[in-house]
Amino acid sequence: MLTIRSHSHDYSVEEHLSLRKALESAAGKKGVFFLIDETVLRIHADAFEGLLPEEGRIVIQASEEQKSLERLAPVFLELLSRGLKRDGTLVVIGGGVLQDIGCFIATVLFRGVRWELIPTTLLAQADSCIGSKSSINIGSYKNQIGTFYPPHRVLLVSDVLKSLPWDEVRSGLGEVIKLQLIAGESGFEELMNDLEKVTPEDDGGVISKWVGRSMAVKKPYIEEDEWDRGIRNILNYGHTFGHAYESATKYAIPHGIAVLLGILTATYLSVRLGLVADAHYQDLKRRLSPWCHPYGEALLKADREAIFKAIRHDKKNTGDAVNCILTRGAGRMEKMRVDFSSDLVPAVEEFINREVG
Amino acid sequence: MLTIRSHSHDYSVEEHLSLRKALESAAGKKGVFFLIDETVLRIHADAFEGLLPEEGRIVIQASEEQKSLERLAPVFLELLSRGLKRDGTLVVIGGGVLQDIGCFIATVLFRGVRWELIPTTLLAQADSCIGSKSSINIGSYKNQIGTFYPPHRVLLVSDVLKSLPWDEVRSGLGEVIKLQLIAGESGFEELMNDLEKVTPEDDGGVISKWVGRSMAVKKPYIEEDEWDRGIRNILNYGHTFGHAYESATKYAIPHGIAVLLGILTATYLSVRLGLVADAHYQDLKRRLSPWCHPYGEALLKADREAIFKAIRHDKKNTGDAVNCILTRGAGRMEKMRVDFSSDLVPAVEEFINREVG
Repeated sequence: MLTIRSHSHDYSVEEHLSLRKALESAAGKKGVFFLIDETVLRIHADAFEGLLPEEGRIVIQASEEQKSLERLAPVFLELLSRGLKRDGTLVVIGGGVLQDIGCFIATVLFRGVRWELIPTTLLAQADSCIGSKSSINIGSYKNQIGTFYPPHRVLLVSDVLKSLPWDEVRSGLGEVIKLQLIAGESGFEELMNDLEKVTPEDDGGVISKWVGRSMAVKKPYIEEDEWDRGIRNILNYGHTFGHAYESATKYAIPHGIAVLLGILTATYLSVRLGLVADAHYQDLKRRLSPWCHPYGEALLKADREAIFKAIRHDKKNTGDAVNCILTRGAGRMEKMRVDFSSDLVPAVEEFINREVG
Repeated sequence: MLTIRSHSHDYSVEEHLSLRKALESAAGKKGVFFLIDETVLRIHADAFEGLLPEEGRIVIQASEEQKSLERLAPVFLELLSRGLKRDGTLVVIGGGVLQDIGCFIATVLFRGVRWELIPTTLLAQADSCIGSKSSINIGSYKNQIGTFYPPHRVLLVSDVLKSLPWDEVRSGLGEVIKLQLIAGESGFEELMNDLEKVTPEDDGGVISKWVGRSMAVKKPYIEEDEWDRGIRNILNYGHTFGHAYESATKYAIPHGIAVLLGILTATYLSVRLGLVADAHYQDLKRRLSPWCHPYGEALLKADREAIFKAIRHDKKNTGDAVNCILTRGAGRMEKMRVDFSSDLVPAVEEFINREVG
């Protein structure tokens, strides 16, 4: 069990033997409501059987459309009218979208209600389930609204990962790889060697091991800088470019894979700016490319204008230059301001045209 | 200047010579947007002249209807489409409703954007402007959604109080009186003596003095217990009953006056429970009644069922008993669980039937 410190309350991350066991543990408290991703409920219907009356379950679709302020009001009203009280608990079962919705609701309902999270994707387990953040869309603005409010307990179950599509596992591995690159050379080496043994059919426990190792890397950053005003920015390594690649391809590239492409871009730019040797980039390219395949194709076809527009509008940017996390090598990331026209644009163009595909 | 500590950021409360001076100070930063109560803008149009382009002003009605989640989405969208950025500032000018709306928006936009507050009512200046809270309605549920996020700066101006209706001044004085009762005997005595000199035409600086004194009482409670999980509950003295009286009379009783009636109720109940001598109640009744007049009439006519329903549904209650702040005398308030049917109901019935009118 891991304990995470937070401005609001400390919370624990516990491993449970199965989804059923985790749900039993969460359902045991008084005033509990489940907020469930409908796909998770369909695939794992058995695990939910007999645990809570229908009234205690709110089932929603895990879509970008659902994750908008306009679509949240009915969910609040369902919870209030069915009788969620300020001493009750909201248990959220799903991946990143469910987490965003559940976290936002739990933050502002009664100015903060107890909530627990059972993350069901690798991305959510290895990365987003700790760190307190929610992101909500409004109108055409993506992720511009959000809160910082961690769950009161995270319940991890490895069995749910087995039912995930392989691309979703790979997407989660993108953030796992990012965290080990941030941690330093040795962890990254060990991870990449382990990953060579992983197949879509069987991972021999490798992935669970790296869920734990990912959290261990992330924990000090979010504890020291929960509000993401300083050192935690480092965790955005690969994200300025990754987010732009996602939005310019209309989310055809899974998040974690876009992050890997973003990491390669940031490293390529770092080489051009003289921060790191080309050998480091070549090594990363050789090791990460298989995990990006075949999404380089989608990036190659993406509208360059849309990519650059997205980078400029990234919510982390202020003024004309662009804040990027660049690298001096594994374990040596730094936040820097990069000139948009003279440095960033040519590097990204060159990266996509020459290095991807 | 007063500085308040907060989990998110420390903030200052500054006195400015006039609304114009305060607005000039707030408009000086880059990326500023004003969120303005339309009544304040109408009454003080001169003070706003030439300060910000039309585009930088968002004018809204200070109504309970506007203060709902459903009605906030257009305000968010206006701010985003007009170009509020994450390094910008939202300046909120108005009373409690504007503060609630502005605070909620500032909390969740970009997961927290800088905001400043120019409170224009006595209630907002003496009480709500410090303490971080916002309260938002959803559907028919009042104040069930909210956040904790203080402004980055509070700008106090006494000249705006001169244009307030007398009833609104009296309503503000309700919270001022509550805070001095919580502080202890001597402050309360001094306040009540000062208030005898105040007339609707002229207060001779008395009210500004007690704005400052109110904040001095509130400051340690909100700094020690910003989340309102413990000692800060004491500030709810009079509110369990006051809120019920407001809602049962459909808000015919101004908030601060309902709080005064609530304080008398809590004291009456405290006497019945043997916590304090009847002499204390009689003294309070003599001193507070003139400030409640003529709203006792409205309470006398209120539907008792609606009052008790509101008390039971107060968001501070969990389970069957009711949490109330009771008193052992000035400066000696305590949170206690009161049995609803056998203790609370008969005391409230008796209070309204015998003591009010």
